Amino acid sequence: MKIFNRLINSFRKFPGVGPKQAERFCLYLMKASEKDVEEFIEAIKEIKQKIRLCEKCFNYSLSNLCEICSDASRNNKIICVVETVQDLEAIEKTGFYKGVYHVLGGHISPAEAIGYKNLKIAELVERVKNENIEEVIIATNPNAEGEMTAIYIKNAIKDYTPKISRIAFGVPLGGDINYMDEITLTHALEGRKKI
Amino acid sequence: MKIFNRLINSFRKFPGVGPKQAERFCLYLMKASEKDVEEFIEAIKEIKQKIRLCEKCFNYSLSNLCEICSDASRNNKIICVVETVQDLEAIEKTGFYKGVYHVLGGHISPAEAIGYKNLKIAELVERVKNENIEEVIIATNPNAEGEMTAIYIKNAIKDYTPKISRIAFGVPLGGDINYMDEITLTHALEGRKKI
Repeated sequence: MKIFNRLINSFRKFPGVGPKQAERFCLYLMKASEKDVEEFIEAIKEIKQKIRLCEKCFNYSLSNLCEICSDASRNNKIICVVETVQDLEAIEKTGFYKGVYHVLGGHISPAEAIGYKNLKIAELVERVKNENIEEVIIATNPNAEGEMTAIYIKNAIKDYTPKISRIAFGVPLGGDINYMDEITLTHALEGRKKI
Repeated sequence: MKIFNRLINSFRKFPGVGPKQAERFCLYLMKASEKDVEEFIEAIKEIKQKIRLCEKCFNYSLSNLCEICSDASRNNKIICVVETVQDLEAIEKTGFYKGVYHVLGGHISPAEAIGYKNLKIAELVERVKNENIEEVIIATNPNAEGEMTAIYIKNAIKDYTPKISRIAFGVPLGGDINYMDEITLTHALEGRKKI
């Protein structure tokens, strides 16, 4: 709809939003109450103004230290290294992990010209050096870039911590062996456990 | 992500947006440039402040009369009656129709307690009475409510215009005009029948 062009252009920049969905969003906002729209705009302004990166782990935070880093019940001697805040969130949702995190802000990728200097690796090394860390779990993604990043990190911190681990690779629960790729299956077989 | 709760709640009110997509949108806005976010907020404010309904046909408009009603090259003796602005848009995209429109603002629905008084039917009758209309094409949706609405409109205007037609059922029953492809819609318009 031509009349919505400007807003449609903005919505098209959202991840995964096509022209049809952008138009539906415009129509929704057209019809939405003033109150809902105001609340929406305020919520956007709020995240842009108030949310920053945690000084320690680079998670999103409302203060200098994020909720996880400032939670005394968490074990701050174990650091789980993730590529993004979304990955951190996914791990948090398991409820299994009680240590702290370090968000790299991506992965090493020669193709995308992302080197180790673009990531928070130096900051991780400092933490491991100074905080007497007992274990670093590297939870970068199980692909070429994630592996490259994991190896780089391992070499950077190996002198400063007694234990470095990598999350296990294998067949996901609920997954179908039939549809699994060879590399995943190879990892699943290699990492097999006695039962 | 708890930190985004307020904005996620706003996004969840958008049509078809689930929790995961709402979170992705928040993350996009977190990372988006100040300029993009400002432009987005301005575009929202613009549609809320500037867009109103056309006095004549109830299409969205920036002035008293919409672009179609004020376009001298359109045949204003033929009115195509649609349920929503989205339906109007879908028909416009065919490029086949050169008349004008009348947007009802929905359909008659006893179940949803939408009666003819909630729709712009009286206004349509006035137009047909006063504007010497040669044909009224009823393009309500091909479902029970759309049919009911079409029959009601036909009875309301039949004394004031020589020709009332209904788009052909080239469009599948139970379908939604908004989502129809241009070719089906063109056929439906071409194959319209006098009722």
